[in-house]
Amino acid sequence: MSKDSVYQILEAVQSGEVSIADAVTKLKMEPFQDLGFAKVDHHRAIRQGTPEIIYGAGKTPEQIVGIASAMLERGQETVLITRIDRAAADEIGKTHELCYNERGRIGYIGPLPEPDGDGTIVVCTGGTSDIPVAEEAAVTAEALGNRVTRLYDVGVSGVHRLLRNMEPIMTARCIIAVAGMEGALPSVVGGLADSPVIAVPTSVGYGASLGGIAALLSMLNSCASGVSVVNIDNGFGAGYLASMINHLSKKP
Amino acid sequence: MSKDSVYQILEAVQSGEVSIADAVTKLKMEPFQDLGFAKVDHHRAIRQGTPEIIYGAGKTPEQIVGIASAMLERGQETVLITRIDRAAADEIGKTHELCYNERGRIGYIGPLPEPDGDGTIVVCTGGTSDIPVAEEAAVTAEALGNRVTRLYDVGVSGVHRLLRNMEPIMTARCIIAVAGMEGALPSVVGGLADSPVIAVPTSVGYGASLGGIAALLSMLNSCASGVSVVNIDNGFGAGYLASMINHLSKKP
Amino acid sequence: MSKDSVYQILEAVQSGEVSIADAVTKLKMEPFQDLGFAKVDHHRAIRQGTPEIIYGAGKTPEQIVGIASAMLERGQETVLITRIDRAAADEIGKTHELCYNERGRIGYIGPLPEPDGDGTIVVCTGGTSDIPVAEEAAVTAEALGNRVTRLYDVGVSGVHRLLRNMEPIMTARCIIAVAGMEGALPSVVGGLADSPVIAVPTSVGYGASLGGIAALLSMLNSCASGVSVVNIDNGFGAGYLASMINHLSKKP
Amino acid sequence: MSKDSVYQILEAVQSGEVSIADAVTKLKMEPFQDLGFAKVDHHRAIRQGTPEIIYGAGKTPEQIVGIASAMLERGQETVLITRIDRAAADEIGKTHELCYNERGRIGYIGPLPEPDGDGTIVVCTGGTSDIPVAEEAAVTAEALGNRVTRLYDVGVSGVHRLLRNMEPIMTARCIIAVAGMEGALPSVVGGLADSPVIAVPTSVGYGASLGGIAALLSMLNSCASGVSVVNIDNGFGAGYLASMINHLSKKP
Amino acid sequence: MSKDSVYQILEAVQSGEVSIADAVTKLKMEPFQDLGFAKVDHHRAIRQGTPEIIYGAGKTPEQIVGIASAMLERGQETVLITRIDRAAADEIGKTHELCYNERGRIGYIGPLPEPDGDGTIVVCTGGTSDIPVAEEAAVTAEALGNRVTRLYDVGVSGVHRLLRNMEPIMTARCIIAVAGMEGALPSVVGGLADSPVIAVPTSVGYGASLGGIAALLSMLNSCASGVSVVNIDNGFGAGYLASMINHLSKKP
Amino acid sequence: MSKDSVYQILEAVQSGEVSIADAVTKLKMEPFQDLGFAKVDHHRAIRQGTPEIIYGAGKTPEQIVGIASAMLERGQETVLITRIDRAAADEIGKTHELCYNERGRIGYIGPLPEPDGDGTIVVCTGGTSDIPVAEEAAVTAEALGNRVTRLYDVGVSGVHRLLRNMEPIMTARCIIAVAGMEGALPSVVGGLADSPVIAVPTSVGYGASLGGIAALLSMLNSCASGVSVVNIDNGFGAGYLASMINHLSKKP
Amino acid sequence: MSKDSVYQILEAVQSGEVSIADAVTKLKMEPFQDLGFAKVDHHRAIRQGTPEIIYGAGKTPEQIVGIASAMLERGQETVLITRIDRAAADEIGKTHELCYNERGRIGYIGPLPEPDGDGTIVVCTGGTSDIPVAEEAAVTAEALGNRVTRLYDVGVSGVHRLLRNMEPIMTARCIIAVAGMEGALPSVVGGLADSPVIAVPTSVGYGASLGGIAALLSMLNSCASGVSVVNIDNGFGAGYLASMINHLSKKP
Amino acid sequence: MSKDSVYQILEAVQSGEVSIADAVTKLKMEPFQDLGFAKVDHHRAIRQGTPEIIYGAGKTPEQIVGIASAMLERGQETVLITRIDRAAADEIGKTHELCYNERGRIGYIGPLPEPDGDGTIVVCTGGTSDIPVAEEAAVTAEALGNRVTRLYDVGVSGVHRLLRNMEPIMTARCIIAVAGMEGALPSVVGGLADSPVIAVPTSVGYGASLGGIAALLSMLNSCASGVSVVNIDNGFGAGYLASMINHLSKKP
Repeated sequence: MSKDSVYQILEAVQSGEVSIADAVTKLKMEPFQDLGFAKVDHHRAIRQGTPEIIYGAGKTPEQIVGIASAMLERGQETVLITRIDRAAADEIGKTHELCYNERGRIGYIGPLPEPDGDGTIVVCTGGTSDIPVAEEAAVTAEALGNRVTRLYDVGVSGVHRLLRNMEPIMTARCIIAVAGMEGALPSVVGGLADSPVIAVPTSVGYGASLGGIAALLSMLNSCASGVSVVNIDNGFGAGYLASMINHLSKKP
Repeated sequence: MSKDSVYQILEAVQSGEVSIADAVTKLKMEPFQDLGFAKVDHHRAIRQGTPEIIYGAGKTPEQIVGIASAMLERGQETVLITRIDRAAADEIGKTHELCYNERGRIGYIGPLPEPDGDGTIVVCTGGTSDIPVAEEAAVTAEALGNRVTRLYDVGVSGVHRLLRNMEPIMTARCIIAVAGMEGALPSVVGGLADSPVIAVPTSVGYGASLGGIAALLSMLNSCASGVSVVNIDNGFGAGYLASMINHLSKKP
Repeated sequence: MSKDSVYQILEAVQSGEVSIADAVTKLKMEPFQDLGFAKVDHHRAIRQGTPEIIYGAGKTPEQIVGIASAMLERGQETVLITRIDRAAADEIGKTHELCYNERGRIGYIGPLPEPDGDGTIVVCTGGTSDIPVAEEAAVTAEALGNRVTRLYDVGVSGVHRLLRNMEPIMTARCIIAVAGMEGALPSVVGGLADSPVIAVPTSVGYGASLGGIAALLSMLNSCASGVSVVNIDNGFGAGYLASMINHLSKKP
Repeated sequence: MSKDSVYQILEAVQSGEVSIADAVTKLKMEPFQDLGFAKVDHHRAIRQGTPEIIYGAGKTPEQIVGIASAMLERGQETVLITRIDRAAADEIGKTHELCYNERGRIGYIGPLPEPDGDGTIVVCTGGTSDIPVAEEAAVTAEALGNRVTRLYDVGVSGVHRLLRNMEPIMTARCIIAVAGMEGALPSVVGGLADSPVIAVPTSVGYGASLGGIAALLSMLNSCASGVSVVNIDNGFGAGYLASMINHLSKKP
Repeated sequence: MSKDSVYQILEAVQSGEVSIADAVTKLKMEPFQDLGFAKVDHHRAIRQGTPEIIYGAGKTPEQIVGIASAMLERGQETVLITRIDRAAADEIGKTHELCYNERGRIGYIGPLPEPDGDGTIVVCTGGTSDIPVAEEAAVTAEALGNRVTRLYDVGVSGVHRLLRNMEPIMTARCIIAVAGMEGALPSVVGGLADSPVIAVPTSVGYGASLGGIAALLSMLNSCASGVSVVNIDNGFGAGYLASMINHLSKKP
Repeated sequence: MSKDSVYQILEAVQSGEVSIADAVTKLKMEPFQDLGFAKVDHHRAIRQGTPEIIYGAGKTPEQIVGIASAMLERGQETVLITRIDRAAADEIGKTHELCYNERGRIGYIGPLPEPDGDGTIVVCTGGTSDIPVAEEAAVTAEALGNRVTRLYDVGVSGVHRLLRNMEPIMTARCIIAVAGMEGALPSVVGGLADSPVIAVPTSVGYGASLGGIAALLSMLNSCASGVSVVNIDNGFGAGYLASMINHLSKKP
Repeated sequence: MSKDSVYQILEAVQSGEVSIADAVTKLKMEPFQDLGFAKVDHHRAIRQGTPEIIYGAGKTPEQIVGIASAMLERGQETVLITRIDRAAADEIGKTHELCYNERGRIGYIGPLPEPDGDGTIVVCTGGTSDIPVAEEAAVTAEALGNRVTRLYDVGVSGVHRLLRNMEPIMTARCIIAVAGMEGALPSVVGGLADSPVIAVPTSVGYGASLGGIAALLSMLNSCASGVSVVNIDNGFGAGYLASMINHLSKKP
Repeated sequence: MSKDSVYQILEAVQSGEVSIADAVTKLKMEPFQDLGFAKVDHHRAIRQGTPEIIYGAGKTPEQIVGIASAMLERGQETVLITRIDRAAADEIGKTHELCYNERGRIGYIGPLPEPDGDGTIVVCTGGTSDIPVAEEAAVTAEALGNRVTRLYDVGVSGVHRLLRNMEPIMTARCIIAVAGMEGALPSVVGGLADSPVIAVPTSVGYGASLGGIAALLSMLNSCASGVSVVNIDNGFGAGYLASMINHLSKKP
C-alpha cells in the first residue's frame, strides 16, 4: 500500500493531474510514510498472527486494557503484556481472558501461536531467584511462536546439575542463560553448546553484585565464543532476540 | 574417536580384559575426555575445514608460528590469527604465506573457505575510527565461511548515510554494528532491520567515552528489539557469533 | 539605584562630608551591594514581565503559597513553580489560580507571557516515558515567552518517526532533545538540524541505564556538532537555556 | 542541485522517458541523496566560505594533506585542522601555508573569514593548564567567523580575577568556560552573566579529578541557569556550538 | 551408592544384559548422577549431623516451614535458616522450636552440634552497627560445630580496645573481622595475628561509604598478609569458610 | 589511675609480692588498659565539661534515653545527640529537657558550654537545601564551646551574596563550607579567606550529583589551598574538627 | 599599594581632578584590583618572608627558572618549587642554588625560614612507598616555617610500630597521615591523638586500589573524629593546610 | 630476647637498680618493642627457616641486593623476592645465586624449604594469560614450605578440562583459583571441592574487564561456599594465605 501512494503520485504527475512542484513537496514532506521504510508496519503486514506487545511498566490497568482492546478490535489475535503485577493482571482479567504468569509478571490475551520456529529455545538459570527474568523470556518466546525448554537452577557452583542436562543444551537452536551474582552460567553453557547464547544478567544478589552490574560485566567478559549480552533483567529482549534467531529460516 | 574409547572400555569389560573396578576408576577419572563432551574437539572433528583460531595478543611471533605450524601439519587447512601487529605479521610471513589485514590486525594462513552460510552478514560502523574493530569482525566471519558486506562510516549523526544503504541492511541474515562514542548505531539499525543485530562498542573516543563504557552502556539500553552486545572492541567475538547464526540451518 | 549609592559616596567625598578613609572602608565592605553586579536583580529590573521561578522540590505547599503571594504582591505577573506533585498543586489551587501540568509536575500562576522569542523551540523525546521531563522543559520555555513545538516519541529505534517531522526540526531556533535509555536522539537530531541542540538525559530505564548515566554519557559523546548536555531529568534547565538562546536578539 | 534530481525524475516521468516503476525504485533507493535532507551538503552549498574541518587525531600528515588538498581544489577557501601536533603541523607546512596554534594543537590553511557573528564569544579558563582546550575552542570559533575574547586563568579560587573582567563577560553573546579540577568556573560565570554558558571540563588534574570526570560532574550539577556541558577536553565542540549560537540571526 | 550404579551398568555389560551401545548412552546421559561428583550430596552422606542450610531471603515463612519440615523428616537433626526477620521467625516458631537470633536475623531448628573444630573462631567487629553481620557469621559457625569468641566494637579508631583482647586473637584458629566505614579492622588484626583473617565489609555508613564499597576496597588492599575478603554483609559466607578452615584436620 | 596500676605492679615486684614472671604476664595481657593510651578516657578526664556525644542513628529513643541518663548520672553536664528525628526528640523530651534543632536533626540535654575557643567558626552553605547539614555542624560546634557565625545560601552561582559577607569570612578562625550540587563553595571561600576551610559535600541534588559524589569530587579537587574534605553530609565531623582547630591554643 | 589606588581615585574626586562619573566607571571596572580583596597579594604583602610557590608540573625548566628569577628579583627570599623531577632540578641548579629533595620531587631556592609555628607537625606514612608524598608535605611545611617530625612506615598492619611513637603523635599540633592501599592510618592516628589529622591518600598500590580511590574512600569514612582529607597524592596541599593550622595564633 | 628486656627491667626494679618511675617511663615508651607483640619478629624467632620476603616492586636491584645480603648475613637461609623483572633478576644474579621464575616475576636465594604443610595446595588458572599471577602464588607457597599442584588453563568455558582434574582438586588442603575475564573459575571449583578456595582475580582482559574489576566482582558474588577473594593480581597474598591455612596444624 505504501508503494501505491508513490505510484499514485507518479501517475498523477504522468497524467498531469499534479504539478512537479507539488509532487516534490509531497515527496519531501512524507518520504517515509510514503516510501514505507517503517519496519514494524511493513513486517506486521506480512507476518500475520504475530502478537502485538504492550510494555506494561508505568501504564495503568485501564491504559493497558484500552490499548489491548484496540489491538484486538483491529484483528490482532494475541496480545502480549510484559511487566504487569498481579493486581494489574486481575484488573485486566475482568474484561479479557488473560493468561497470566505471575513469576514472570507477564501475560497474554488470546491463543498462543503454534510453535513455528526452526528448533527449540532453551532458557536456563543459575539459581531459583533468576526464575522471574527467565519466565519473562520464556513466555515472550512462546508467545512469538517458539518451543521452549526450561532448565532452572543449574548454576555453576554445582556444575553437575548443568551437566545432567546436556541433551537439551546440545540440541537447542538458541540458548538464553539467565544469571545474577557471579553471572558465570553463560560462559559454562557457551563452552559446552555450539548455539548462540544470549546472556541475561539479573539484579539478584546484594553488596558487590551492584544491582546486576557484576553479572553484566562477567558476561561481557565471557571467554566462551558465541555469547552476547542484553540489559540487566531484560528477559523480554532475550526472548524476542531468541525468537528472531529461531525464525531466521522463515526470512525471505 | 572419543566414543571409541568408551566403547573400548566397555568392550574390555565385556570381554573380561578389564575388571569392573578398573573401569570405574577410568570412567571416573576421565569422564569428559572419554565421553566426549568437549565441544571444540567434537565439532571440529565433524565440521572439517573450519579454521583453527589463534589469539595473537601476548604471544611472540615465534610462538604463533609454532602453533600454526603444528595445526597445519595436523591437516588444518586455514589458520586464523587475531590481534597481531604488522611486525609480528611480517615475522610470520617469513615462513608462511599470511594474508594480513593491517587495519583489523588479523590474518590467516591458507585459503579462505567458500562461503556456505545461510545469507549475508553486514558489518557496519559509525565512524572511520571504528573500522579496525569492524575488520576484525569481517575477516573473522569470512574466514569462518560467510559472505560479508561492509558499510563503513554510516553513523547516526548523519543518518542519511545509513538510509542510503537500506538494501543490504534489510536483507542481511545478521548485522554487526560497530560504534564508539555515543554507540547509537545498533539502535537505529535494529529499528530498521529485522535480523539479529550484534552490537560492538569500541574504545574510540576520549573523555566521557570512558574507553568505550559509554558506548557499551548505550548499546545495552537499546530500545530496539533484537540487539545484543559483546565486549568493547571484541570484533572477533561478534564475527564468530554472526557466523554461528548464519550457519544455523547447517546444525543437525 | 545601586549606582546611586556609589555616586552618593563619591559626592560625599567630593563635598567633604565623608573622609577618604571612611569612603575606602565603605567601598571595601560592600562593593557588590553597592556596585550592583548581582545579575538577577539587575536584569529583572530591566526585563519586566519575566516570571519569577519557584523550585518546588522540598518545599511545603504552604511555603510555596507564601513565596508566590509575596511575589505577586510585589507586582510580579507570572509565577512559575517546578517540581510540584498533584497534591501540592491542589493545595496551591485553593488560594491561587494555578495552571497545572501534571505530567511535567509544573505549574504557573498568572497569564502566560506573549511569545516574544526569535523563533520556535522544538521539544522532542525518544519515548513516551520521557514526556514528563519534556513537559517541564516545554512549560518552562512557554512561561518564559517562547513558542514551543512538541515532537514526542520520535526515538532512534524507529527513525522514520523522526524523519516524518523534518520541517519543525529544520526550522527551529533551538531544539531540546529528551531521551533516556541509549540517549541517542540528540545525535540523530543534531546531525539533521543546524540549530543548537540541548540534550536532556532522563532517568527512564532500568539495569544498565544506571538511573540516566548511560544516556548522559551517550549524549556527552555525541558525534553531532552543536549538541550540549544538561543534568539528568533537568527539563527546567533545558527550557531556561533554550529561552535564553531564543531571546538573544533581544540582548542589548 | 539535490532538488533538481527529484525534478528531473519527475520530469522524466511526466515526459514518459522514465517508467513509474523505475522512478519508484530510484526514489526508494536513494531518497536522501535525492531529496536532500543531508544537512552538511545542503548547508555547505548555501553558506559558501564556511571552512571545512578535518579531525586530525589518528590521521597521518599525508592523509591530512591529501584531504586538505582535495578540499582546496574543490574551491574551499579555509580548511580547519584539529588535534594535530607540532610534527604533523610541520609536515603539512611543507606543502601548504598552515597557520598553526601549538597550544591548541589546531591550525588552518587559507584566510580566516571575516567575523560575521551577532556578537562576541568569550572563552575563559580556570587555570593556565586549561589553555590548550580553550585555544582549540577559540581558534575553532574564529575560523567559523566569530570575534573571540580570551580571559585565561580567572578560576574561582581567586574570584577577584574574574570580577576584574566583568565587562566582556556581561556583554558576550555566548561564553565558553573551560575548567578542570573542581570545574566551578561555569557556575560562577553563569551566575554573573545572562548569556548561554558552554561548560568544557578538562582532563587537567590528578587523583580524584578522575581524568576530568570530577569537573564534568560539577558542571552538570551547576546551580546557575543557562549552563550546558560538552565532553571533556572538547574545545572544538564548544567553539562550534558557540559559533552556531552567535550566528542564529543569520538563520533564515 | 553412586558408585553402585556405575558398577551395575558395567556388571550388566559384563554379563551381556546391556549392550555396549546402551551403556554408552546411559553413561553419556547421566555421568554426574552416576559417577557421583556432586559434592553436596556426597559429603552430606559422609558427614552426618551437619546442618542443612536454608537461605531465607525471598522465601515466605510457609515455604521455609515446608523445606525445613522435609529436611527434618529425612532425618536431618539441625536446620539453619539465614536472613529471616522477626515476623517470619515468629511464624516458623508456631510449628517448630526455632532458636532465633534477632540481631543476626538467623535461627536454627534442632540442637546445636557439639563443637568439634580444631580450635576457636574469633568474630570481631569495628563498631556496634556491624554486629548483625557478625552474629550471622557467629551463629553460622556455631551451627556448623565451632567454638566462637565474640569481640565486638574493637574498631581501629580506638585501637586500645583491640589490644586489650590480644589473647583470643593470638590463639584463634581463624578470625572473622567485620567492619564498615573505613574497613580497617582486618588490616590491624591481620598484622597482629598469624591465623587466616576473613574480612567481611558491611554496608554500614553513609555518603562515601557507597553501601560498603569503601570498606570492601579497603579490605582488598590490606597490607597485612593472610587476609581475604567475602561479599559485603556476607556473614554467612564468612562463618561457613571459617568453619571449613577450622575443620581441616577432619578432612581425609 | 591507669598509671597507678603499673606503679602497683612494679611496687609489688619491688616488694617481692609478685614474681617477675607474673608481672610479665600481667603487663603483656593488659598493656593498654594499664598504660592508659586510650585517648578518649584520658582527655575526658582532663577537660571536664566537654559534652559526651551520642550518635542517634539506628538507636531507639529508649536506648538514647538510657545512655543519656547514665551519662548525666556520672556527672556529665551536657549530652549532645546527633541524627535524631522529631519523633525521637519528642520521646526523649518526655524525660529530659532536650534543646532540639529540627533542621539539623540534632539536640542536647543540659546547658551549652560558654564559648572558649580561640576565635569564631563560620558555617556557610551554597543553598538552602544544605542547611540541615550546616545546622548539624553549627550545633555540634556550639555544644563543644565555640562561637558560630552562620552564612547560609551564599553559593557560587550568585557570588555577590558571598562577597557581601567578607568580614566574617576574613576574620574566622576556621570555616565550614557546606555545599551540594557542584560543590564549588569551598573553592571560592578558600580563595578569599586564609583560615582552614573544612568542606562538607551534601547529598542534595539529583541525577549526576550521584548522591553527593559530584560535590565530594569537586571539593577534593579544589584549587584553593587550605581546603580539606569530610564525608558527604558529615556535619558532625566538620563541627568537631572545627572545634578542635578553634581550641588548639588550649592544647598543652 | 592597592589601597593607594582607591585613595588616589577618591583624592582625585575630592580635588575635582576626576569626575564622579569617571570614578564610578573606574571603581566598577576594577573593583578587586583596586580594593585589594585578593588574599594572596594582600597577605603576602603583610607576612614578609613567606615563600612564593611554583607548581612545577607541566612547566619546562626554563619557564621555572624565569618565574623564580622574577620572584627573587622582586625581593622574594625563598622560592618553593613542587613536582619537578631530577632532570629539571639539575637544569634549575645551573643558575640557582636549589636545595632539591628527590624523593618528594620538591625543592627550594633561598634559605629555609626559621620555624615560627605554634607547635610541631608530624608527617607519618603507612609504608615506605608513601614517602614521596610525605616528603612533598614535609618540605612544604618546612618551607612555610614549621618544625616537622617524620614517622615513616608506621602502617596499621604492624600497629606496634605506630604505638612505639606515641610521644610525637600525642604532642603534635597537627598530624599529616599519608597512606595508600587500605588507607587506614589516619583512622588509627585520629583515634589516638587529639590534634587535627589531615589524611592524604596515595596512589600507591595496584588492582583494587584504583589509583588511590580505595584509600581516599577509606579515609573519608574514618570513624575517628578530627580527620579530614585532601586529594590523592596531594602532599603540598596537606603541608600548606598543616602550616596554616600551625600558625593560627599568628592570625590577627 | 624481647621478653628478656621486660624481665631485665623488672629485675632491675626488684633489685632496686631502677626506680619505679623510670620503669614506668620505659614501659610506656616502648611497650611493643619490649613486650613483644610484634607478630613478625616473634614468630620468625620461633619458626626458624621461614624465608624472609622482599617486595621487589619500586626497588632498584642494588637495594634488593643490599636488603637480601643483610638478611643472609643475619643467618636467614632463604630470601624470597617478588615482582622483579628479568633485568633486575640478572643484576641480582651477579652476586647471589637466584632461582628466578620469569613468568611469575619472582625468585629466591637459598634452598627451598622441605614441604612441611598439612596437605597439598592446588593452584589453578582459567587461561594461559593468568599463569604469571599463578606462578607468583605457587612459588610463594613453595618457598613457604608447601607442596603445590599446578592446574593451568582449566577455565569454565571448557569445563571438561577442569573435570578431568578432579582428583587433585578433591584432595587439596587449599585451592588457589586464578582467573581474569569473567572470573568464574572459583565458583565452579568451590562448588566441586570442599576445601577453602582463595580466588585471585587477574587484570587479564580488555574493555569491560576494567583491569580485573569484572573478575573481582564476579568472585565476590560467588554462589559457592568456601570462597574468599584477594586483590587483583595478588598472587603473593594468595600463596601466603594458602600456606598459612596449610600449616594450621603446626600452630600451637
